[in-house]
Order: sequence, then C-alpha cells, then structure tokens
Amino acid sequence: MSAFTPVGFADVRLEGKFWRERLDTVLAHTIPSQHVQLEKHGILESLTLPNPPPPLRYPRNNHGFTVQVFWDSDVGKWIEAASYALAHRRDAEIEKKIDAIVDLWGKAQLPDGYLNCWYLGHEPEKRWTNLRDNHELYNLGHMLEGAIAYYQVTGRRKFLDIMEKAIAHVRTIFGPGPNQKHGYPGHQEIELALYKLYKLTGDRRHLDLAAYFINERGKQPYYFDEEAVARGADPADYWFKNYEYSQAHLPVREQTKVVGHAVRAIYMYTAMADLAHELDDAGLRTACETLWKDVTETKMYITAGLGPAAANEGFTRDFDLPNDTAYAETCASVALIFWAQRMLHFDLDGQYADVLEQALFNNVLCGLSRDGEHYFYSNPLENDGSHSRWAWHTCPCCTMNVSRLIASVGGYFVSHSDDAIAFHLYGGIATTVTLKSGKVALRETSNYPWSGEIRIEVEPEAPAAFTVKVRIPGWSKGGKVSVNGQAIDAGAAVNGYLDITRTWAKGDRIDLDLPMPAERLYAHPSVSMDVGRVALRRGPLVYCLEEADNSGGAVQRFRLPRTAELKASTRSDLFDGIVTISADAVALEADDWRQALYRTNPPRQETAKLTALPYYLWNNRQQGSMLVWVPEA
Amino acid sequence: MSAFTPVGFADVRLEGKFWRERLDTVLAHTIPSQHVQLEKHGILESLTLPNPPPPLRYPRNNHGFTVQVFWDSDVGKWIEAASYALAHRRDAEIEKKIDAIVDLWGKAQLPDGYLNCWYLGHEPEKRWTNLRDNHELYNLGHMLEGAIAYYQVTGRRKFLDIMEKAIAHVRTIFGPGPNQKHGYPGHQEIELALYKLYKLTGDRRHLDLAAYFINERGKQPYYFDEEAVARGADPADYWFKNYEYSQAHLPVREQTKVVGHAVRAIYMYTAMADLAHELDDAGLRTACETLWKDVTETKMYITAGLGPAAANEGFTRDFDLPNDTAYAETCASVALIFWAQRMLHFDLDGQYADVLEQALFNNVLCGLSRDGEHYFYSNPLENDGSHSRWAWHTCPCCTMNVSRLIASVGGYFVSHSDDAIAFHLYGGIATTVTLKSGKVALRETSNYPWSGEIRIEVEPEAPAAFTVKVRIPGWSKGGKVSVNGQAIDAGAAVNGYLDITRTWAKGDRIDLDLPMPAERLYAHPSVSMDVGRVALRRGPLVYCLEEADNSGGAVQRFRLPRTAELKASTRSDLFDGIVTISADAVALEADDWRQALYRTNPPRQETAKLTALPYYLWNNRQQGSMLVWVPEA
Repeated sequence: MSAFTPVGFADVRLEGKFWRERLDTVLAHTIPSQHVQLEKHGILESLTLPNPPPPLRYPRNNHGFTVQVFWDSDVGKWIEAASYALAHRRDAEIEKKIDAIVDLWGKAQLPDGYLNCWYLGHEPEKRWTNLRDNHELYNLGHMLEGAIAYYQVTGRRKFLDIMEKAIAHVRTIFGPGPNQKHGYPGHQEIELALYKLYKLTGDRRHLDLAAYFINERGKQPYYFDEEAVARGADPADYWFKNYEYSQAHLPVREQTKVVGHAVRAIYMYTAMADLAHELDDAGLRTACETLWKDVTETKMYITAGLGPAAANEGFTRDFDLPNDTAYAETCASVALIFWAQRMLHFDLDGQYADVLEQALFNNVLCGLSRDGEHYFYSNPLENDGSHSRWAWHTCPCCTMNVSRLIASVGGYFVSHSDDAIAFHLYGGIATTVTLKSGKVALRETSNYPWSGEIRIEVEPEAPAAFTVKVRIPGWSKGGKVSVNGQAIDAGAAVNGYLDITRTWAKGDRIDLDLPMPAERLYAHPSVSMDVGRVALRRGPLVYCLEEADNSGGAVQRFRLPRTAELKASTRSDLFDGIVTISADAVALEADDWRQALYRTNPPRQETAKLTALPYYLWNNRQQGSMLVWVPEA
Repeated sequence: MSAFTPVGFADVRLEGKFWRERLDTVLAHTIPSQHVQLEKHGILESLTLPNPPPPLRYPRNNHGFTVQVFWDSDVGKWIEAASYALAHRRDAEIEKKIDAIVDLWGKAQLPDGYLNCWYLGHEPEKRWTNLRDNHELYNLGHMLEGAIAYYQVTGRRKFLDIMEKAIAHVRTIFGPGPNQKHGYPGHQEIELALYKLYKLTGDRRHLDLAAYFINERGKQPYYFDEEAVARGADPADYWFKNYEYSQAHLPVREQTKVVGHAVRAIYMYTAMADLAHELDDAGLRTACETLWKDVTETKMYITAGLGPAAANEGFTRDFDLPNDTAYAETCASVALIFWAQRMLHFDLDGQYADVLEQALFNNVLCGLSRDGEHYFYSNPLENDGSHSRWAWHTCPCCTMNVSRLIASVGGYFVSHSDDAIAFHLYGGIATTVTLKSGKVALRETSNYPWSGEIRIEVEPEAPAAFTVKVRIPGWSKGGKVSVNGQAIDAGAAVNGYLDITRTWAKGDRIDLDLPMPAERLYAHPSVSMDVGRVALRRGPLVYCLEEADNSGGAVQRFRLPRTAELKASTRSDLFDGIVTISADAVALEADDWRQALYRTNPPRQETAKLTALPYYLWNNRQQGSMLVWVPEA
C-alpha cells in the first residue's frame, strides 16, 4: 500500500487562470448543457419504463447492438460529473434534476435489486444473459460512481442506497458459488466503482467482488462462450472473433500486450492497479507495469492518445500510429489519467506523472471545446478540415468523461504521506494537508502551462520537519530550484521528483524555474508514419499547425527545416492569452503545377512563416486543416 | 469517328521476352487455375439450378448483399479471358470446359430469354426489381463479352446465340416505350458488351440499347428510387445514401467530377467514349475529356491506381491519395486501360497512351503474381508486411480482369488508318496491317520496359508512301530517332507522336533510343500524404522499396537525400532479369531508442544502400514491408 495518497479534488482550490477558465466553463456551460442533451436525445426519458417502450432512437447496428444499452451509464456519469461540479458550487436546480433521475431509478429497480432500464424496458427476460455484448455491469459501475459522488457532496443517501441494493443483487448473481454465474463484465468499469464503494464504506465484500471480476477474467472455458451457448447462440458468431477485444483472452496476470478496445483495456488496468495497491498484490502490479511499458513504449500517440483504429475502437500492432485516421478516443485518455495516477502512487515514479500530464494537456483537453459545449470523440493528429467537434454524440460516453475529469482535476495535483508532500502538477492551487506533524497550508502559484516559473508557499501551523517533493517534469531540462531564494541542486531529483527535506516554517517558499523552450520531438523510427517528420512541444503542450493561424490553404504544405529557429510568443489576442510557436519554414507552392499530379522537378518551395498553437485548442475557431507531425525540409 | 483503329490482339504476335513471359504464364497457369478455383468455390456449381439451391457460401452482408449475385459475371469473364488465351493456343480441354458451362446456361435460360442463375436459383419472382443493388445487367454484359470472344476464336455460336436471345429479352424489358422499364444498370458494364455486339453483328439495336442505358442514367425522378418504391422498399434506405456511388446522380453529360465506385465509373466512361466515337457525339466526348482531366489531375495514384477508399471501393475528394490504405482496385486500372485506349483513338493524343502505359506496367501488372496464380485485389503503395496476394478472392472480379487484359495485351500496341501506322507501346511484337497502299509487315524489337532501345522494321509488300507514327512517351527526355541510320528530329513529335512520312520499302527500319535514367518523381503539393517524399521511376515503371531487397527491418526506415545518385542496375539474378534502382540513402536507426517512443534528439541516421524494384513485382518472394513514396532526407 502506497505511502502517498492524493489530496481529493474537493480539498484543492484551483486558483490559476488556466484551470479556473476550464473549470468555470464546465460548471457554467458543460454540466447544464449536458443535461439538456440527455433530455433532448431521449436518454432521460429512457429511465421511465412505459410499456411498451418507445421505438428505438438508435436502431441496432449490424452486430445487433444499439447504443441505448449504455444509456444508464451516460446518466450515471453525468451525475458524477455534476456532483463534482456541485463540490465547487452547490446548485439547487442541478440537485433537483439529479434527485428526479434518482427517483426514476428508484421506481425502476426491482425488489431483488436488479436495475437496468434497457433490459427492464425492452427485454426483462434476458437480463444477465449477455455480459459479453451488453453493458449491465458497466452501467451499474458508472451509476455507482455517480451515487458515491452525489452522496459525498450532498450527504443524500437515496441514490447510494439504490446502488448498494443493486450491488448486493449483483453479488448474489456473480461469484464462485455453485449456483452463481462465474462471469465478468464485457466492458470493464464496475471494478473501479466497487473499489470506490469499498473505500467509502469499508465493506470488504465490495473489494472482493471487484477482485473476483478481475481474477475470473480470461479463465478457460470462457464465460462468454458458456453464456452464449446458454442463451442459444453460437459463440463463434462473435463479431470480433476473439476476446482480445475485451481483454478476456487470457487471465489478467498473463497479459503482457495491450490489445483490444482501448477504454475497456485502460479501465481494467486501472482496476488492477487499485487492487494491487489495496491487496499488496505483486503479481497484479507486475502485470500493470508490463502493460504500461507496452502501451507507452509502442502504442501511444505523442498527444497521449490511445487506440489508433476505429474498427475496434482500440489497439493494433506495435508502432501503428496513423495520424489522420487516429481514433484516440477521449475516454481512453481520460482512463489513462486514472491509470497513471494509480501507477504513480506505487513509488511516486515521475514517468507516470509525465504521462498523466501528457494525456491531460493534450488528448483529454482536446476533447472539450472552448465554449464547453462541443466535443471530440476521436482525436486525430492530422486532418484535412473535415473533422469537427460534435454538439453531442450518438454514443456520448466521452462528453461526460471529459466533464467529470475537468470538474475533479484538482485531485491530480498534490499527494501526501505522513511526513511528505508531493507536487505532481502545477497551475495555481491552494490546499491544506495534515501531516503527522500537523497541518500545512500550501499555495502553488504559476502561469503554468504557459510559464515554468512556479512558486510554492509552504505554511505549517508551527515549524516542522518534513519533505516537500516537487516534480521536475520529464520534458524539462536545466530547471532551477531555490528555497527562500537559496538555490538547491535540481539535478538531485530522483525519478522525476526533487526531495526538499528541512524544517519548514511560515513564509517559506520554493521557487521552480523550469525553462520552456519550444522544441522539436521525433518519433521512434518504427513509427513509419512519422519518419522524416517533426512535432513541436513547449512544456507539457504538444503543438499543431491549424489553418486558422496559417492562411493560404492546407497546412500540409509546410516543411520545417531542422535548423529553423522556433520562437515562442505570448499571444494575448488568442483564447485569453496563450503561447504560440512560430518558425521560418518553407511552403510548397502549387501555382506552377498546372495539369500535373506528378512531375520530375520538386515542388517550388517558398519561405513561409508557420504558426503553431497548442493541439488541444484546434477546431475552436473555424473548420480547417490541422497537422501535428510536420515534414522536415 | 477516329481515323485510327487498333490492330486486334489476335493479329499481334508478342515476341519480346517481357510480355512473352506474362502471356505464357497466363496461358499455362492463370487460365487453368482460375477454372479450378471457379469449381472449388462453388461458382460453376451455381450455374446448375437445383431446387432448393444449396445454402449460401457467402452470406448476405449487412446491406443484404451476397457476392454470389455476381457469379455469372465471373464465369463470363473467365470465358472471355480463356477465349483470348485460345486465340494464342487452341486447347481442347479448355474448350470442353467452356462448352460445358455454355450448356448449363442454355438449360438455365428461360424461354423468354431471361438468364441469371442467381435469380433463377434463389428468387425468380424478383427478377428485374432491383437494378440498383443486384447485377443482372452487369452479369449479362460480362457473359456477352465472353460469348463474343469465344465465338470469335472458335466460330461456335451456341453461347453467342444464348446471349443474343438474352439481349433481345433485355430489349423488351428496358427502353423508352410506355410498357418498358426506363432503367439502367446499377453496375455499368453491359454498355461495353453491347457496343462489341453491335460491332460484331452490325445490328444497330445493340448500339441503341447501349446509348439508351447511358442517356437514361441520372435522369430525375431516379429510376432506382422508382424501382425501390415498386418493390415495397424505402429509397432512403439505400446504404450509400446517394447515387454518386453508381454515377447515376446526374445525367452523364452533366457529370464533371469523378465520383463513386471506381470500376463502375471507369467502365461507364469507356462506354461513353465508345458511343462518342460511334455516334460522333461531341457532348459525350467533352464529358469524357472533362472527367479524364479530373481523375488524372486530382485522383490518380502514381501507379495509375484509382479509388483510394475501401468504403465505396472508389473515389473521395481531390488529392486524397493515402498510400497504406489505398484501395486502387486492380479492376479499376484495367478499366482505365480500356478507357484510355478509347480516348487515345479520338486524336491520337499521347497523354492517353501515357496513362494507358502507366496503368499497364504498374497497378495492373501488380494484380497478378509472378506464378500467375495469386492476385492483388487492392494495390496499396505502402505496406507494413501484412498485405499479401490471394490465391482467390471472395469477390473474384479482379482475377479474370487481369487475365483477360494480359491475354489480349497485344491489342494495345499498334493502330492504323488508311495511310498511317501508329506505335503506342513497345516490347517486341510482329504484325501485318493493311493500308490503302497494301499490306505492311511490322516488327518491333526491344527489351522494353528495361531498355528504351527500340527497332521497328517496316516492310511493305511494295514500296509505298505512308506515315509511321512512333510514340515518344511522356516520361522520356532526349530521345533519339533515326530512319535507316539517319537521325531525324525527335523534338518534332507532336502530342507524344513523331510522324515519319516517306516512301517505305523492304529493309527500312526506325531506331528509337529513349534514355531511361532512374529518376525522382514528386507529387502535387496538395497530395498531403506525399509532401516531403519522393518516388522513383525508370521508363514506364514506378519503383518501390521492398523488404526482400533491403534486409534489416521495415523499409519505412529509409530516407533518400535529394542529391543522392540513383543507379540503375541490370539484375539477371532477379525474376529472369530486371533492372533495379539503388542509391546511397540514410536509414533511421532504432538501437539507441530504448524505452522511448518520442524524444527531442533526432533519430540517428546511418548511411545505407537502398535498393528499389519495380512496384508490380512486389510480394512475389516473401512477406515484408513495401514503400513507394520515400521520405527525403
């Protein structure tokens, strides 16, 4: 069990401009507009159980599925996100809406505890017959997370009671007993929720059920085969052909390669890490470490996007990272943040914080528009101008994943143990932690991610000896650190953290100066799509060329000489102040290409200034082309 | 009507090594093995009409289609290919097999002439109710082409009689009359066959029917909508959503952009060009020229592959030419050869011959393996080693398209008018043409495409004045031409042809020396996939890097400096003698990339020799990576 635990988001006040803007947008626009969308798309209506139910809004696809089977989860996830928002600012209107939803679920729930509005409304006789394809356990997971979050912020128990009753029912159905189904979810998620419920209640049975689902997974004969036979189906008719899709092809401890549906995979690894912590299970931890290496060393976009393929919404072969067709679902990178946080808290190894930050500032933030009411589901790294943000999505999973993440982002900044405090992220926060020696008030002030100048004020109730660990990000070089103006050796940082152990007293401050030059990044040569190409990064932000900043046609015309100077500029005229990167590049000119698609003389190249902006901000102004990996000249 | 007509393949003897090898392979291996495959896959069996029919080998897909509805066409196309083979070398065994097939069709045909083994065997009551999706007219087209070819080589009429009866039936069903259906094929093809039948029989009704199908196409209200309503379906349920898929969105004369399914499109343009020739229809010709410009200037791979997208087996937006996912169906480039030949014969403009040659030596030849028994359906320009040739294909259209093309390739070499002879392709042929002035024996000797040294011997029965037009390919620069050793000005060539008008006598010879340096090609800057990349070409052949010639990992590791010398080498050890291109390039090394997917210092580059071989030959030795467009260093 880790010595460090994160300070929960409700105890961390976001003060910096960057996160304040995102949080305010989520509170003022995203959460309310999501409720409007849930209503508009019939998702809330689906929680009442008329008989007969209304016709499907989203007919079954050619595998026989309709997205409507996930709808309970979408509502659950919205309640979770809304509850996090309420922790920042209570809102009677929103709470009324949540209570109304809870009432519907309360009415829908069967006396035995079963609760799934799809099955109850459409095919009640089929409940618990197809975990492989449908989402009964997944839905309960998200509802449970919503119930816990709502209880924590309001103290109202009704939703939590409903969900505890539902989980008690699940526990009668699934387990090792002779009359129980030895099953596990087709889409992992409930394991995370059960772990949270265990942490909330201390009831060990919730932990055991999470562990049962994880440990049962992948055993042969496959449960998914058995349940198919039991319902009269041919297991061979499974559309994906093998259980890599849901990471049920092997027992989890034997899995060494990241495969299948990306969100399923990363949720599962997160649950495995939770269990590894709680049960001090070295086998699970080793599996997590092996899978982490596999995904971050061979299958992750530079934006920390995961899963290149739309076909399985997931992983393919090593180093297969196509840019224009990248799926890189927002949900998968949100999940990566969850997983990274668990991995970080084994030993506080900064490589996990680096990926957490990379996912947060790039693929995840990209998923939500500046106005807070439009979304990316997939996050390609190149586009011809046809990709754009949705006001809603047929499968709205990403919308509430990004809102719940931003509404709770404060929870990723700081951890502490009995005698140490660790700063993982920067951007302007204030919090108070309680060490063995007493309370310590902390304030971190910075204009991060635009600047690497960071001040941390450490204010114990009374002078006390403890350690403050400050993260030196993997992207930074030549950082300087001082305590009360006295330089200390930043090079002494180990695994990405610099330990500052001393007797702290009111007025003490740490200053970090992490230089943020605009820099070039190159991909591993096995990423064939990026050979001869370069990406731009400054601090934690990956940059892209967008047509809005580079008029004159598609940004794919640019080539960047390796020697061209990269210039970072503060632009107060853009998005309330950001930093762009510009360079004297060359642009291929097509004006002398009349009537030829190919020719022997190279395209004419003209000197041209290129301007790059942070990837997460693209497609907030106009439709147009976008490019992360620029060909070198 | 064109002054020039092609000399038919049966009158052109292939003598050069390059085409002899391909032709012998097709005769000895491809044609017989295709019959074996037709038998093995139940396609021949489908021509007998048991009741009930056997269960589907290829179940309907999610649009309700099964490839089995095309099977008549596959057999028809095999008979066409086999008949072309018989023109080179009669074969009683093959003829017996064809006669057996013809007998089955004879038995299947209804007294009214209707013939379609799918409908007759599975849903006879539905005949002529769904031209949009099914393939009754398309099938008849291929069967008719087979019947004509078989009749021409053997003089046996039975198949032709069956097909004339079937066409007479079609003529009763479709046409402008009040009791006729004002329809046209969902997959164009029969128009080409009807034109051939008209040319064979002189029966104007066949020409009129072809013109009817072309002219009716795209008129509103749409026939496909009307027939859908008539069969009780909702036209809006059409999976492709609009009729661009089958080029039925607009009347053909109003079409200016190449859209939809590539094979459908190019077959249609070919038929339009046939009609433009025959009817001296300037409107159709202009439409063809506009569409030709559109496709060759914005939508054609450097291999003359057409149609980047698998989703519609066809065209997308201008300049969208992804390399690794290129569909570039073999059939589409075979069709391009058909179309180019028609366009060429308007005015003998060499741009059409250039594309014909480009398609032939690259995308089309690539479709057939060296052993003559394996095929590419799609022809990507980059691959990670997973793409490989098929022994057969679920939809075997390409297999017989490539065999019929190679078996009749001699028909693309020479044309003549009353007083002129034109050479379009080179590679070693002998033929005799009859001009107004008498017969002229011709022999072209060369080691083309490996060498541009070409000798043409012109031998009239008696000395006579006429013109010999020799094509100076668009790819060639600085070519020299001499007549009987006397240099003439090759620069006087107009539109790709050099006219040599004189009194010719026995012993006269023309010598062409077309230098074939290995050279670099660049794509139009709007082809974003190829920015910063270069392709290699020598003569008409586009080259690629294949792992078999470049050991040490994926060929995607190479970068080619713009200044690196390209060296062409004759390699007698490869494929009975070919020319490769090699260069001192650089290769990205991954040995210092432990545990990192991205980094700030560029990949280490080592000098490395790169070897390229003709694209059409790839995947004939081992599985491995392949690349046409190489990043520049």
